[in-house]
Amino acid sequence: MLRFPRRLLGVATAALAVLAAPAHGRPVPMGAIAAARSAQERAILDQFLDLLAIPNVAADRDGLRRNALAIEAMLRSRALAPQLLTAPDDPGAPPVVYAEWRSPNAKRTLVLYAHYDGQPVDPADWSSPPFTPTLRSSSPEKGGMALSDAAPAALDPETRVYARGAGDDKAGVLVVLGAIDVLRALRRRPTDNLKIVFEGEEEQGSPHLARTLEAHRDLLGRADLWVVCDGPAHPSGRPLIVYGARGDIGVDLTVYGPNHPLHSGHYGNWAPNPALRLARLLAAMKDDKGRATIAGWYDGIVPLGELERRAIAEAAPFDDQVRVGLGLAAPESDLSLAGAATEPSLNINGLRSAAVGADAANVIPDTATAALDVRLVAGEDPQRQFEKLAAFVRAQGYLVLDRAPTDAERRANPLIATLRLRPGGYPAARAPMDDPMARTIADAVRLASREPVVELPTSGASLPLSIIARTLGARGIVVSIANSDDNQHAADENLRLGNLWAGVDLYAALLLHAPL
Amino acid sequence: MLRFPRRLLGVATAALAVLAAPAHGRPVPMGAIAAARSAQERAILDQFLDLLAIPNVAADRDGLRRNALAIEAMLRSRALAPQLLTAPDDPGAPPVVYAEWRSPNAKRTLVLYAHYDGQPVDPADWSSPPFTPTLRSSSPEKGGMALSDAAPAALDPETRVYARGAGDDKAGVLVVLGAIDVLRALRRRPTDNLKIVFEGEEEQGSPHLARTLEAHRDLLGRADLWVVCDGPAHPSGRPLIVYGARGDIGVDLTVYGPNHPLHSGHYGNWAPNPALRLARLLAAMKDDKGRATIAGWYDGIVPLGELERRAIAEAAPFDDQVRVGLGLAAPESDLSLAGAATEPSLNINGLRSAAVGADAANVIPDTATAALDVRLVAGEDPQRQFEKLAAFVRAQGYLVLDRAPTDAERRANPLIATLRLRPGGYPAARAPMDDPMARTIADAVRLASREPVVELPTSGASLPLSIIARTLGARGIVVSIANSDDNQHAADENLRLGNLWAGVDLYAALLLHAPL
Repeated sequence: MLRFPRRLLGVATAALAVLAAPAHGRPVPMGAIAAARSAQERAILDQFLDLLAIPNVAADRDGLRRNALAIEAMLRSRALAPQLLTAPDDPGAPPVVYAEWRSPNAKRTLVLYAHYDGQPVDPADWSSPPFTPTLRSSSPEKGGMALSDAAPAALDPETRVYARGAGDDKAGVLVVLGAIDVLRALRRRPTDNLKIVFEGEEEQGSPHLARTLEAHRDLLGRADLWVVCDGPAHPSGRPLIVYGARGDIGVDLTVYGPNHPLHSGHYGNWAPNPALRLARLLAAMKDDKGRATIAGWYDGIVPLGELERRAIAEAAPFDDQVRVGLGLAAPESDLSLAGAATEPSLNINGLRSAAVGADAANVIPDTATAALDVRLVAGEDPQRQFEKLAAFVRAQGYLVLDRAPTDAERRANPLIATLRLRPGGYPAARAPMDDPMARTIADAVRLASREPVVELPTSGASLPLSIIARTLGARGIVVSIANSDDNQHAADENLRLGNLWAGVDLYAALLLHAPL
Repeated sequence: MLRFPRRLLGVATAALAVLAAPAHGRPVPMGAIAAARSAQERAILDQFLDLLAIPNVAADRDGLRRNALAIEAMLRSRALAPQLLTAPDDPGAPPVVYAEWRSPNAKRTLVLYAHYDGQPVDPADWSSPPFTPTLRSSSPEKGGMALSDAAPAALDPETRVYARGAGDDKAGVLVVLGAIDVLRALRRRPTDNLKIVFEGEEEQGSPHLARTLEAHRDLLGRADLWVVCDGPAHPSGRPLIVYGARGDIGVDLTVYGPNHPLHSGHYGNWAPNPALRLARLLAAMKDDKGRATIAGWYDGIVPLGELERRAIAEAAPFDDQVRVGLGLAAPESDLSLAGAATEPSLNINGLRSAAVGADAANVIPDTATAALDVRLVAGEDPQRQFEKLAAFVRAQGYLVLDRAPTDAERRANPLIATLRLRPGGYPAARAPMDDPMARTIADAVRLASREPVVELPTSGASLPLSIIARTLGARGIVVSIANSDDNQHAADENLRLGNLWAGVDLYAALLLHAPL
């Protein structure tokens, strides 16, 4: 137990980078992996760019299907026999792309997971169109210039690819594919039986994943560990291993004013303004320290163990560098960044009421809407957390509906809110940091990495680990490789190619030496 | 003085509808005016539709210029000699379209004012494209069906024309043009010298009107009264005369979070959320009764006189009908609708932070913006009112800038707001309700109207009356004819044709019988 914290940010130097012999293979020097990867870089980049050119937002099921078919073709070209696993309850939903690569002597089965869907985009906010993958010599803030795809510098580690999904999480797809390429080049098989799952609805809260996994239990029922290749590396730049992920629910909140927008001169001071009402309601939800004032919000949380608390404390010194990089004078709360991830969050994703700027009209808007997301930690139930929020809105005097009000309801109730839980969403899942199987993979990652690895009890982000646990009884960890400034979920999402190359090496090493 | 309140909602029945002989003309029965208008309806409607098809938003100066040229052509076809008056400080700004029609024996000069520009549009919110004028047999809520422009029912009083500017204020332009047509058909001249001013920047706060009027003082310097044809009739459906208008300033408020949008999972609970900050700031600006909590907000207001207070009290019984029509359970404040117009307002026109609904992404936004408008009443100064608002934001702990912050400012100041006063804007202007010249026109309107006329001390809306007063020393009143449910400033703006026909009659009568 005492040894572990010492290794938490443990270093694997180049001198150590010859992996120990796996149970049924010869040791492979990291230099050989890197050389094999280097020979594949052009091919990997071309496939990455092709995949990024296919739109992958939830509203575009056809685009998502084309992503799945492209990935299926990429797996087939690697002599695997991919399948598209569809959801039994909605066969038109974006399929899971599945493949496997068996090893004759393997005793265990490892699943590598990534997702090919991305967050919604507003092209107006992007420097280049989100589905026209664009290379730049570095980020624009650092004076990065646009590069031709064919330029020799296109493969440089500092080169960045800009497109929706570049970091989150088509990078994960290409890391897995690139690792397979490396093994083929080295004429090696994975140490464990390998199964591959590429999901297409992660950003929607994986609404069909549970049914799909249940329907294909024959393929996926006996895995020993899932390794999720998603999310950015630690803000310090180091690779990151996390042992869990927060749950997530999305909530849409709308409040009402007059039944149509009114001239703000004729009716200003008299007709109630829904934007002001929404502001009052949201302002009441948190105190000055960023702590939710909603009754019971923090009830029932599974406490952290000693290892977890120590890991959080060891990560805290990085916070100041992150804060400065984000242009912040102070964080919202007294929590450290890693500590904040172990509490439930309540966050405003967006606000909208009529228009602002050049489009603003002199109106009293008819509605005002906020998009909220709530991240859950171990011990919290999604539906119960939503109900606490609804109870809070009711306690502010609102009639809470799950639909728009009728005109009669509007005339009878001064305060009406529509509060809706979005489809998808799931609870948190967290493995103890001393879980033996997870530690075995973590050891391999640590040995293979050129840099110290940061380990934390949970990601602040959400991944369907709880769905995997509930439907298949399997545990998962997350090994993240994307640059932490990849603008995931925002405009100008990007991946630094050096992170892609290091990620391929890391996952190739993990496949060759995963002594489960 | 005592007689006046009795006449405030005075009735002119059909029996009274033969106007008394003006100083230099024969009396004209209202029936003859209506018959002349009726013969012109098709031509007036066609010109209205042509004009509405030309985009008229501030961001489109070319479109505004095309509107001005179209109106110039319409005036020329009526044998007037129109001119485009440009702003000396910005010759590319939308011009004032000016024309005059002199009467040999007239002693006085009357200016009719309307404006051809409209509020910004978001076509996604419209049932039909805002610049494809569309006829419906009545409003869609009442089951109105689309009509062909050529249908006989196209001229019915209940027919509505849907387009940006239909009610606010191309209706005003066509009312003036239609009234000229009626006089031509009756072979009459206006009783007073007539000058016509059609402005193209009213919705922007008339930023060039003062300079333009000053530069053309030779044309407009000696008018006795301006009559503004703008704004909706009273919500009761009755024609409305107001003796003043509120001033208006537009303010843009932006607050800041991290220097780019962040993943709400990784940074939720830790990175400050600008949407929440904006909510807290806006929520603090008003109390539970809708009264601004900003220091000095109500200082210096010119008190109302006895006539004005009585007019407000007489209008209050209409409020309940308005409230029910708007689907409201209660107004925001204890003020009556007419009373609210005599106080300064503070209104949120719009909110925006990242995105909501299907476009929402799981982010902590980087900024949150509100568009505010502040209506001013007599005695208040625009710049001083803005400074009270800025002082309030400062008192909440914010560094207040008139530009976006630098990264160094962000790192040093937890709370930063950009607060900008938009160009345009002006103070209120209000004539006493017993002003003799204004009353003369009001008497003519009252006699000519088929319905009781409502008179109020001020419009809640804003019109450049204070600019006219300051630059030319002239007083103005507003005679409004549009349907009060014309959705002005909002999507699906429309004009009920019956209001257009009645407006033409009213203004023709006003021109024939304006014994100033």
